[in-house]
Amino acid sequence: MNTIIMEAIQDFYPDDVSHCYGCGKLNEMGYQLKSYAVGEETMARFTPKEYHTATPGFVYGGLLASLVDCHGTGTAAIATYKNEDRPFGSEPKLRFVTASLKVDYLKPTPLGQELLINGKVKEIKGKKVVSEITISVNEVITVRGEVVAVQMPESMGKK
Amino acid sequence: MNTIIMEAIQDFYPDDVSHCYGCGKLNEMGYQLKSYAVGEETMARFTPKEYHTATPGFVYGGLLASLVDCHGTGTAAIATYKNEDRPFGSEPKLRFVTASLKVDYLKPTPLGQELLINGKVKEIKGKKVVSEITISVNEVITVRGEVVAVQMPESMGKK
Repeated sequence: MNTIIMEAIQDFYPDDVSHCYGCGKLNEMGYQLKSYAVGEETMARFTPKEYHTATPGFVYGGLLASLVDCHGTGTAAIATYKNEDRPFGSEPKLRFVTASLKVDYLKPTPLGQELLINGKVKEIKGKKVVSEITISVNEVITVRGEVVAVQMPESMGKK
Repeated sequence: MNTIIMEAIQDFYPDDVSHCYGCGKLNEMGYQLKSYAVGEETMARFTPKEYHTATPGFVYGGLLASLVDCHGTGTAAIATYKNEDRPFGSEPKLRFVTASLKVDYLKPTPLGQELLINGKVKEIKGKKVVSEITISVNEVITVRGEVVAVQMPESMGKK
């Protein structure tokens, strides 16, 4: 049996900035989203709870925006480690935050199934990374987003 | 003593589409955001929980996007009732959903205080309403958003 061990980028965030409600490994109340490098792209999976509703049967748009957001900052960190040709988690450890977020709700996202979140980098410029994120269910893209992420300023906790 | 009784627009949404995680009165697990008409503008207030963190001490961006989102759809309903010169909740009842969302995080939003969410309509065109939303803490604007809201399609539950 062949197995691939993949490590999520969020597991390499410094502990003192790993409390994000969307993706922090140290936030027990949060979503704990995990973003992985897959070839030149990135991927995450998430299954909403039954109460994450917009209207009955559909996923809440604010949750979808949150998934775009956190997968965007994760994608930025993955891309920057790769761009600097060094392993995830090597020093200085990277941690991005969102400067701006755009989300287009292309169609209602059905609730009750696993969501696939894909990311692709559009631009890396200094400490800024722009990525394109999609969310799909059963291979149908329902949400398309763009995240402008920047390296976390010291004022937000990263030393 | 003079009192003003204000009714939130979300309390006029039809019951069968009042399960939104962000603002549905029938979603006991959700945020239950309440948006009010104040003169020509709109207003809501929200105090995040201590676990709604980005990094320790700051509010999670996905929650802020959610507040922009739900206050944007609420603002769209308020503006459309007014534009049609009829009382909130009169038939046909209005319920908007988000077509697209843009959020600029101008600076980190401190956690532990009440957030003020303000809305202003930029454009009403047929069944589409564009609104500008800000979030502020202690009179400092930390988030600026734009919401394109459209009247809910029947496929999402509104008959």
